[in-house]
Amino acid sequence: MCPAGNLEPWVRTTGAIWMAYKLSKSDIEAARKRIMGQAVVTPLLRFPVLDEATGGTILVKPECLQRTGSFKFRGAFNRLMMIPAEERASGVVACSSGNHAQGVAESARILGVSATIVMPSDAPKIKLQRTRDLGAEVITYDRFGEDRVAIAMEICDRTGATFVHPFDDAGVIAGQGTIGLEIAEQARALGFDSLDAAIVCTGGGGISSGIALGLLDEISGCQFHTVEPADFNDYARSLAAGERLANEQAKPSIMDAILTESPGEISFSILKDRASEGLVVSDEEALRAVAFAFRELKLVVEPGGAAALAAVLAGKIKLKGRVVAIVLTGGNIDFEILQRALEQ
Amino acid sequence: MCPAGNLEPWVRTTGAIWMAYKLSKSDIEAARKRIMGQAVVTPLLRFPVLDEATGGTILVKPECLQRTGSFKFRGAFNRLMMIPAEERASGVVACSSGNHAQGVAESARILGVSATIVMPSDAPKIKLQRTRDLGAEVITYDRFGEDRVAIAMEICDRTGATFVHPFDDAGVIAGQGTIGLEIAEQARALGFDSLDAAIVCTGGGGISSGIALGLLDEISGCQFHTVEPADFNDYARSLAAGERLANEQAKPSIMDAILTESPGEISFSILKDRASEGLVVSDEEALRAVAFAFRELKLVVEPGGAAALAAVLAGKIKLKGRVVAIVLTGGNIDFEILQRALEQ
Repeated sequence: MCPAGNLEPWVRTTGAIWMAYKLSKSDIEAARKRIMGQAVVTPLLRFPVLDEATGGTILVKPECLQRTGSFKFRGAFNRLMMIPAEERASGVVACSSGNHAQGVAESARILGVSATIVMPSDAPKIKLQRTRDLGAEVITYDRFGEDRVAIAMEICDRTGATFVHPFDDAGVIAGQGTIGLEIAEQARALGFDSLDAAIVCTGGGGISSGIALGLLDEISGCQFHTVEPADFNDYARSLAAGERLANEQAKPSIMDAILTESPGEISFSILKDRASEGLVVSDEEALRAVAFAFRELKLVVEPGGAAALAAVLAGKIKLKGRVVAIVLTGGNIDFEILQRALEQ
Repeated sequence: MCPAGNLEPWVRTTGAIWMAYKLSKSDIEAARKRIMGQAVVTPLLRFPVLDEATGGTILVKPECLQRTGSFKFRGAFNRLMMIPAEERASGVVACSSGNHAQGVAESARILGVSATIVMPSDAPKIKLQRTRDLGAEVITYDRFGEDRVAIAMEICDRTGATFVHPFDDAGVIAGQGTIGLEIAEQARALGFDSLDAAIVCTGGGGISSGIALGLLDEISGCQFHTVEPADFNDYARSLAAGERLANEQAKPSIMDAILTESPGEISFSILKDRASEGLVVSDEEALRAVAFAFRELKLVVEPGGAAALAAVLAGKIKLKGRVVAIVLTGGNIDFEILQRALEQ
């Protein structure tokens, strides 16, 4: 089985052989070739108002401008391109409450294969609708009584479809890593040969591990920070402990896009030697960042996608005199949440 | 008096000598040097969802991401830099319903001079507040009973301040023209050596005439279209007639940023030989474009700034198989207007 395959059936069937598979810059370069012309090369933006607000030089990578409104398209399209054609014809299956769903659905639409997405019945209506609009079959499940992975695996076993994990998949990580290559090149084009830090919103760690791989070899002296909701600080604690730790109790958070139980195995194996201190932000800080993005940056950013912006606005690391890249990971926000952010 | 001076006192005192002043690419290159490091070089964006919606290849220049949230900063900063230092110390005065106000106020703040802005008392709340936040003195007037130019001129005569016209000023036009140079260069970097058309939101014509100057010599075969509110179609009629025609009756429009009585003298003299058919869009089309920008592009765009997007979404020119650049000129929208757009 391809080492870039999805983790769960992989581990289930073959143990931890994937650990021997070392993702490297060449995988990310290959991903960049696969997604070229389909994924958008998002810009790296400067905002004087943000520099003044933070005291630093903040370089903003707005993945909300990516196809489907989040970075997830990069990893999904790369992963689907890696499925051998005869297998791909049997379709793909994913579990997601929103952004990965749209990334997989759009990739499948482009490649002309069927996509089945297992989504919670209480997912935001707009995310359910957008996923259906992209042509995917949406199967809803009860988050409190059913196992979404079991549902997905049953479909794969029955139809021969390929399961596409949202983060713990080498192909998905390599796709997200293209963001890191772009940041390095675009920072140089803006006159920055080095970065002092990069901050990336982190759920399972697919985008963070990808960017760490794609960026840190390319640009010198850069500290890498994950940023999570304060009550979902599994990465911050895991990085401090040097081993994967789960969140003890799931509490609600406005940052729905980055709520995960624990770091992914592949993503943590990449980040544990590359990431500095893991940062956390509160819901209020995330909402303030959503409002700042709307009012001052004129960008539509969802709360989970605004966590890195929240971290710099709240001064979670030293910024004065430093050059710091942040990624705005997605913009699929319900209008009611934006309203709440602006009314704060 | 400097030929780049403001039009009204210039015409008032010296007649039409400015007509002999030919703005050229070198003026725009000089403006680019003046604003470098202060104005943002906004990107030129691709959105697959927009290409699919329109059938064309649409290159989007998002000036909503410009400092102060609109393109106006470019022209204002360039113009203020052209004022001799001893005159600049007496401050600047402008009339504006909002975006030019912020551009002038921010430029004055950076250069450490005082700014007085004459604004209608019914200007969008966000624009009044943001102008004050930038340190300008705001003087409000009644749009239906008072003459804003007379108010501004009285201040200039009394204080020695320089009047900065929102569009009919060679220095302002040269600053806006830097957008045209950037579009040409960025289109080439994206692989487009030619454009079939460019569409720019048009009030008095400062940005349109600047972009026409900066872009059309740089890139071959490009038709240039102004786009206005349907009830403020002075440019469309003037271009068809070959002479400046005023709007007969001012009706309300949601596109507050681009409501002007008639084309500017300098801007029309530039556009009359360069622009193709002038386009118009309805308020409903503009609001649909605002909603599309929010939902699909994840950009915050105000109605007047969305007119060019409205024109391509409504198919006002042939798009199939063509490469068309549009400018989103500003993003300073009141939340209530966004809500109205999304509820349409």
